[in-house]
Amino acid sequence: MKISEVGERKLVDDFLSTLELPDGVFPLFDDTQAFRVGDQLLSFKVDTFVFSTDRPKALSPYDCGWKAVTAVASDMAAKGASPYLFACSLSLPGDTEERDAKEIEAGMRDASKKYGGYLIGGDTGEANDGVIAVAGVGFHANGSYTPRKARRPINDGDLLAVTGDFGYAPLGLSYAMGELDLPEPIKSKALSAFARPNARLRSGLALSALGAKASMDSSDGLALTVHELLALNGLRAEVEKLPTDEDLLNFFEVKGLDPLKYVFHGGEEYELVAIFPPESKTAMKPFGFTPIGVVYKDENAGRIDYRGSPIPPIGYEHFRKR
Amino acid sequence: MKISEVGERKLVDDFLSTLELPDGVFPLFDDTQAFRVGDQLLSFKVDTFVFSTDRPKALSPYDCGWKAVTAVASDMAAKGASPYLFACSLSLPGDTEERDAKEIEAGMRDASKKYGGYLIGGDTGEANDGVIAVAGVGFHANGSYTPRKARRPINDGDLLAVTGDFGYAPLGLSYAMGELDLPEPIKSKALSAFARPNARLRSGLALSALGAKASMDSSDGLALTVHELLALNGLRAEVEKLPTDEDLLNFFEVKGLDPLKYVFHGGEEYELVAIFPPESKTAMKPFGFTPIGVVYKDENAGRIDYRGSPIPPIGYEHFRKR
Repeated sequence: MKISEVGERKLVDDFLSTLELPDGVFPLFDDTQAFRVGDQLLSFKVDTFVFSTDRPKALSPYDCGWKAVTAVASDMAAKGASPYLFACSLSLPGDTEERDAKEIEAGMRDASKKYGGYLIGGDTGEANDGVIAVAGVGFHANGSYTPRKARRPINDGDLLAVTGDFGYAPLGLSYAMGELDLPEPIKSKALSAFARPNARLRSGLALSALGAKASMDSSDGLALTVHELLALNGLRAEVEKLPTDEDLLNFFEVKGLDPLKYVFHGGEEYELVAIFPPESKTAMKPFGFTPIGVVYKDENAGRIDYRGSPIPPIGYEHFRKR
Repeated sequence: MKISEVGERKLVDDFLSTLELPDGVFPLFDDTQAFRVGDQLLSFKVDTFVFSTDRPKALSPYDCGWKAVTAVASDMAAKGASPYLFACSLSLPGDTEERDAKEIEAGMRDASKKYGGYLIGGDTGEANDGVIAVAGVGFHANGSYTPRKARRPINDGDLLAVTGDFGYAPLGLSYAMGELDLPEPIKSKALSAFARPNARLRSGLALSALGAKASMDSSDGLALTVHELLALNGLRAEVEKLPTDEDLLNFFEVKGLDPLKYVFHGGEEYELVAIFPPESKTAMKPFGFTPIGVVYKDENAGRIDYRGSPIPPIGYEHFRKR
């Protein structure tokens, strides 16, 4: 069978099932791989940005470099780590203009700096596609790691919370593709969310102090991410609040667009989704977290209801061959 | 200008010149990036294997995975580090057979284990080329790092030494391409060197104790590697011994082949090239190092003479589009 028929998720799951880390105090299949060095805790992560599948034409070379580093930084944030070193493997078609290669590098360099880390270089060569693989090493300053699968009990009534406003990134893509027009200030926010997302490091560093029990990066889209977090922890969620802002909700209403499509089934949002005890409700807000619902233990784990209606665990269509 | 015209080396050099690591006790542009964690010293490295440029058809998917991890392990060895974690970014064309993807993964997994490390997974997806990017994190057990550019003085008469027998890997490639026939045991050794090279971790771990002043991985080919090591350190070398075995020298003679071509200008040999004080001459041998010549301080640094004749700093042709 061809890998395009197998599907990316099954390929990765099958691959992971063949691996083991004998002294693995930390889970193998999380947003990052944690490991101990003396009394310090570090995280290690690789992520890939492929031009033919991940790059709508509207993304500049600089944006691609920026997003490739942001994806790794966001995974670090979701575990409570701070990036330290980034290294890249940059493969580009031979007819790529040198200035475009330098723009990609500048995007990676600037994003690394933005996240408090250092780009140390890496490997540059030719290939029949643009492939930016970014590896990162980060530190858990307080020694804590917030896993996807909680190690402490999650109770009925614990809070599901997220950072950021969902829906802008997919809207920015639609705008960039010429599919719809956007008024200001939505246009600026959407294009920025789509092309220059920011990893939520400040929020991530607060996870542990806020008592977060489980956390995950949301770049696969809100519905898929929440579904996976719930499924891993034997939970369902009742979501009452759409994690986005009034401007966007008004825009959706005026235009007759389905807010659920953009908020739940968008993607490429480098936000955090986490489960907190109820008593963190107020404390989490200054750190950028918004409670959007409540979780319950459930036999059919993974179910998401939004104001009583089920939300299917469907992600965005990969931006294939645009 | 297109990057194919700029050339890989200039692209990488230009990129590196834009980077900085403010607290950089360890050099940025070495085989690996060293960094401190408490009282421990670690190394970080990314390397890339691209199917369209690095894969002669004779390499199986398993071999490709093996070589991608070996390249990183060899860079670790050259600095005196032991690999601990490997992570991969595996991009493959959609029409790749699933069993081939699994073979690549098996090659990476087995090589990681062989080198005492653990493959922790990574990213798998589709692209218009096969691109295996491998990132590694390793430990310097004794806290020492042998750089490319020596920090201690190198003296006239210090020894140039290498591990392994050069020439087998390029000969294995020629055989696999049907360019020449090989008798046993040369055939087996050549195919193994070409398809399943072994990183010299045991030799690398001995570098520091043997007093090595500078060290570098040789995968760009012996002439290029020695040239770079000499140029960085303001040295020339007089090489007296070809680092290969009698079988191969006899074979070259019988076939009328130029041994210098295969030994100096091959490549894909994952060996170490290092500079030692003369008193290490005997002690280095049990650790796999063979002295091949002597270095001298020189204004026109980088010059290599083999028995009085200059060896040009020319590498192997990248295995393009075979």
